[in-house]
Amino acid sequence: MPDWIAERTKCFDSSGIRKVFDLGAKMADPINLSIGQPDFDVPAEVRKAAIDAIESGKNGYALTQGMPILRERLQQRIDAEYGHPDRELFVTSGTSGGLMLAIMALVNPGDEVIVFDPFFVMYSALAGLVGGKVVAIDTYPDFRIDLDRVAAAISEKTKLIIFNSPTNPTGAVATEDEVRGLAELAAERNVVLVSDEIYRAFCYDRPFLSPALYNPETLVIDGFSKSHGMPGWRLGFAHGPGEIIRTMIKLQQYSFVCAPQPAQWAGAAAIDVGITQHIDAYRKKRDMLLDGIGDLYDIARPGGSFYMFPKTPWGTGAEFVERAIQQHQLLIIPGKIFSHRDTHFRISYAASDGTIQRGIEALRKIAKEGP
Amino acid sequence: MPDWIAERTKCFDSSGIRKVFDLGAKMADPINLSIGQPDFDVPAEVRKAAIDAIESGKNGYALTQGMPILRERLQQRIDAEYGHPDRELFVTSGTSGGLMLAIMALVNPGDEVIVFDPFFVMYSALAGLVGGKVVAIDTYPDFRIDLDRVAAAISEKTKLIIFNSPTNPTGAVATEDEVRGLAELAAERNVVLVSDEIYRAFCYDRPFLSPALYNPETLVIDGFSKSHGMPGWRLGFAHGPGEIIRTMIKLQQYSFVCAPQPAQWAGAAAIDVGITQHIDAYRKKRDMLLDGIGDLYDIARPGGSFYMFPKTPWGTGAEFVERAIQQHQLLIIPGKIFSHRDTHFRISYAASDGTIQRGIEALRKIAKEGP
Repeated sequence: MPDWIAERTKCFDSSGIRKVFDLGAKMADPINLSIGQPDFDVPAEVRKAAIDAIESGKNGYALTQGMPILRERLQQRIDAEYGHPDRELFVTSGTSGGLMLAIMALVNPGDEVIVFDPFFVMYSALAGLVGGKVVAIDTYPDFRIDLDRVAAAISEKTKLIIFNSPTNPTGAVATEDEVRGLAELAAERNVVLVSDEIYRAFCYDRPFLSPALYNPETLVIDGFSKSHGMPGWRLGFAHGPGEIIRTMIKLQQYSFVCAPQPAQWAGAAAIDVGITQHIDAYRKKRDMLLDGIGDLYDIARPGGSFYMFPKTPWGTGAEFVERAIQQHQLLIIPGKIFSHRDTHFRISYAASDGTIQRGIEALRKIAKEGP
Repeated sequence: MPDWIAERTKCFDSSGIRKVFDLGAKMADPINLSIGQPDFDVPAEVRKAAIDAIESGKNGYALTQGMPILRERLQQRIDAEYGHPDRELFVTSGTSGGLMLAIMALVNPGDEVIVFDPFFVMYSALAGLVGGKVVAIDTYPDFRIDLDRVAAAISEKTKLIIFNSPTNPTGAVATEDEVRGLAELAAERNVVLVSDEIYRAFCYDRPFLSPALYNPETLVIDGFSKSHGMPGWRLGFAHGPGEIIRTMIKLQQYSFVCAPQPAQWAGAAAIDVGITQHIDAYRKKRDMLLDGIGDLYDIARPGGSFYMFPKTPWGTGAEFVERAIQQHQLLIIPGKIFSHRDTHFRISYAASDGTIQRGIEALRKIAKEGP
């Protein structure tokens, strides 16, 4: 076979995170703190709604924009929350589907896309796939957003800022000043602000704040995967200015087609299902992990999501993670997957308390044993 | 809001087919022969497998390449069918997801993509989205493939030929000579042959033939949506040369992420569920429709899928369809949605026999009443 593969596919390498998963799959009883999904299952009422949909013949194509039962409920909630005159909504194939359509709808080749380093890997991969240029703003060591640096990074070519709070991989939750400042800056400089709010339910110390509160043209990407334990159902939604949303729907019609239909009926049921008990449990998991390793690791205290991003006590992130996996069966993710730096690693505490406890013991040993 | 929308989104217009659906949604009791999905429901065993998956906690992310229970079964079937040394397989989010990844994986800006006119709308939309140039080979009036025209259309810039048999929108099924000739021509001229086999189960007059039988580097896109009545579950698969499949998996990891997990367990069950009774019923529907209108319409006899593509007895396709919808509540699709010509229209007979009968009566009236 000759060289048939398109150039755009060479803009990123997905092997790093995969290597960790592949290693883990071969281990009998790994301590798995690498997982990007909740350890709780879909609530019973939500499972029942999906099953009822399947049993009552709701298995055909959904409307591209989403089934009315879900779309209208979400639109009401969004209207009540923001009251923007031009905020439309549609249902996506997971949050990642929404992200992909947003980037395809907005980024021309050569456009610059601002992300905050460390950042969720998909942002740079998707921007690269459409010919966008990623401009990463370093947020180490505390993962706060420096508005002066953002202002300085915005150029004539800047099309998007991708904002994510609570954050994967650091767990940072932006303050009101950061959120408001970024929202106002984007409006002032005529840049699209994309807010990835998939972890919004996972705020432990203060209420969630969306930049859409301060900038009515914010494009919000959201979904049910993390809040209701259903990442495998591929259900998300996006809301924002009508012209952007309608363009994303047009793209969805000829690509994803629609989000899975049974999941949409389940999503409508999920809106009424509280998950406070899970959030309380995850707050405790965070505290358990911080209490367990905070004396040996330099960690910016995470206020949300279910990750933390400690600095390695020795070695690069890659070296440290290799030791953790190979000598201690501890699965964690090297920071360089998410960053231009190779100095940190990601821990997910979306795991049982027992697994977290085993992780704490392993992490204490590794810190002490040194390189 | 300034002009935030990316140029690529302007390469196609999706409003035509939507207009028909929107009109239909407003009618009390339309005669709906516009639908691109089977009128039968998911088989009970397959629904049960999805429900069992949901109830047993299989709701998290699936492996990007697909769950082993489905992927391994499919791979065995493919290996038995073709025995190619380098034919890998992965699970996609519907057939359209597979198509999108194929085009992103293969087509560079400026590359030419050959399609056979009339063609499924998504081919040209997706090719345009990545900067590809669509080269359409006219197949009117009988929708046969003229290999000399294909050979003449292949240039230095040709990257892909997208082949679809049985065909949407014409129902044509390529002959062995056409399939073999096209497969050999693609190999000889070093062009990727993409075979969209989503309608392969719907062959009424002779067995299905894949170009992969004659060209081991054929990239096949397939799925369960049409064969098992589950288009809303978004489950497809793709198989082809390892390098292409691995590139598509890499792209899927950072876009679709995975196909819905419960649907994958259901797909594994679907492999063992025969659908002969449905195919027999659809053959009868085709015959009923042909017998019902064949004397008044010029129709290339369709051998598969669940469409036929008659020439209008008067007016353009658009004029004819407008009359059908507005005066007769008959929903059909104007041919220009799928074609550079506006002379035909698409009928779907994926409908109840009663609906088809009503459609026949309406079509007979419209033909006779003239413009």
